[in-house]
Amino acid sequence: MQSDEPRSASPTHQGWLRVIGLGPGDPALLAPAARAALSEAEDIIGYRTYIQLAGPFRDDQRVQDSDNRVELERARHAFQLAAAGHRVVIVSSGDPGVFAMATAVIEALEQAKDPAWSAVDLQIIPGISAAQAAAARIGAPLGHDFCTLSLSDNLKPWTVIARRLQLAAEADLVIALYNPSSHARPHQFNEALAVLSAHRKPETPVILGQSIGRAEEQVILTTLAEIDPKQVDMRTVVIIGSSQTRIIEAAEGRHWVYTPRWYPETGKNED
Amino acid sequence: MQSDEPRSASPTHQGWLRVIGLGPGDPALLAPAARAALSEAEDIIGYRTYIQLAGPFRDDQRVQDSDNRVELERARHAFQLAAAGHRVVIVSSGDPGVFAMATAVIEALEQAKDPAWSAVDLQIIPGISAAQAAAARIGAPLGHDFCTLSLSDNLKPWTVIARRLQLAAEADLVIALYNPSSHARPHQFNEALAVLSAHRKPETPVILGQSIGRAEEQVILTTLAEIDPKQVDMRTVVIIGSSQTRIIEAAEGRHWVYTPRWYPETGKNED
Repeated sequence: MQSDEPRSASPTHQGWLRVIGLGPGDPALLAPAARAALSEAEDIIGYRTYIQLAGPFRDDQRVQDSDNRVELERARHAFQLAAAGHRVVIVSSGDPGVFAMATAVIEALEQAKDPAWSAVDLQIIPGISAAQAAAARIGAPLGHDFCTLSLSDNLKPWTVIARRLQLAAEADLVIALYNPSSHARPHQFNEALAVLSAHRKPETPVILGQSIGRAEEQVILTTLAEIDPKQVDMRTVVIIGSSQTRIIEAAEGRHWVYTPRWYPETGKNED
Repeated sequence: MQSDEPRSASPTHQGWLRVIGLGPGDPALLAPAARAALSEAEDIIGYRTYIQLAGPFRDDQRVQDSDNRVELERARHAFQLAAAGHRVVIVSSGDPGVFAMATAVIEALEQAKDPAWSAVDLQIIPGISAAQAAAARIGAPLGHDFCTLSLSDNLKPWTVIARRLQLAAEADLVIALYNPSSHARPHQFNEALAVLSAHRKPETPVILGQSIGRAEEQVILTTLAEIDPKQVDMRTVVIIGSSQTRIIEAAEGRHWVYTPRWYPETGKNED
């Protein structure tokens, strides 16, 4: 039996593991299924920032927040507790299935080859991802074919990232970029912009979404030519329009951005 | 003043328009913000199937369902009512911003150039899209870079679709296909498979998600070589793995599918 020396006696009921996404952070966008899992959980595990958004918790719930970003360790700890009979929730931001904890959880399961872990009642509860939340605030930039790429080269080589950007640009897909920039690699976002600028017009709409659904929310509408990389950090989602993405002005200077459902009949699909 | 001859006297309060997504259909995955909009609405507009999932409604709420698929007409009708002071909800499936009603709504707004429409308090409330819901059921196939493409050629030429598939395959992105097949164009899904098979191994995992979150839900795990096009219709979301997507077997013959966060260090990124 796996055990993590739980601080209380092992419960007698069947344990389970739920991997939930908080969505963008606004409780009004949190799925009731995720809310229910948080309420039923005995152990809540996650990165401190997300745990704070998910709370408050009751005294009988054990909250195991951490500053560490070692997702696999967190996933293993969760399986140990669940296999020992605990009801465990792993808290992720956005959608746990999009650049978040669900992948690490299945990876931990595969590596362990532990029948007790394999038998754990595991459910992944999807959530609204950052790009969707930012898109909704400004209109419908993801209204047609799009791709979702992470610029982080922690776990994949930059050559793969650059090639994917290049091909996505050629395909004239709207592009949502996660983890666009960090202190460790400020130059890479500029490299990404250079790749995209070779295929898209300078006036291509670009949306920067920050902390959507939270008090400090910011949605910045700019263009490929005018984007200020200083406004982009690891917590920004960047949406870059296709050749068809349009900006329209509504009352009181409000702008909406959308990518039409139609595509012009033409032999070429890039500018 | 725009008016659609409302059946009751025009209300005196400020009208608004909310474009909501039902998510996959399971109320446990419906955002509280969307639920609240449905409760506060005076007029609920949408395609009949989605209206039925969104209900029941009160006697004082006007439900305007339709069989017609003319999204622009529905959007115009909603703006007319909202500009006349009604609280109006347009119901979409999944995420209204992903191949759904939000784009048609902004398109209607742009075409009308009507200051009364432009001044309408318009909000788009995001939802969980079909690909996310299907992915969560089977693990984390969208756990790394992916794209979301519609195979419908109603509004874009097939040449554009085929080229996007080709480039997405070269980029080794996981690919989520919406509107993959219809009676009107059964051959196109086979063409899409042919394009993808030129770049991906026969054993590439493929997930078919149908009616996720509803009673008739089905998630089928198959491979690129073994996929049965007869199991694919307009209401299926098809997720095709990248070269890295993995299938693992858990207890009781259950299978999980995930796309790792890491990518091998290599000069080539396709097979």
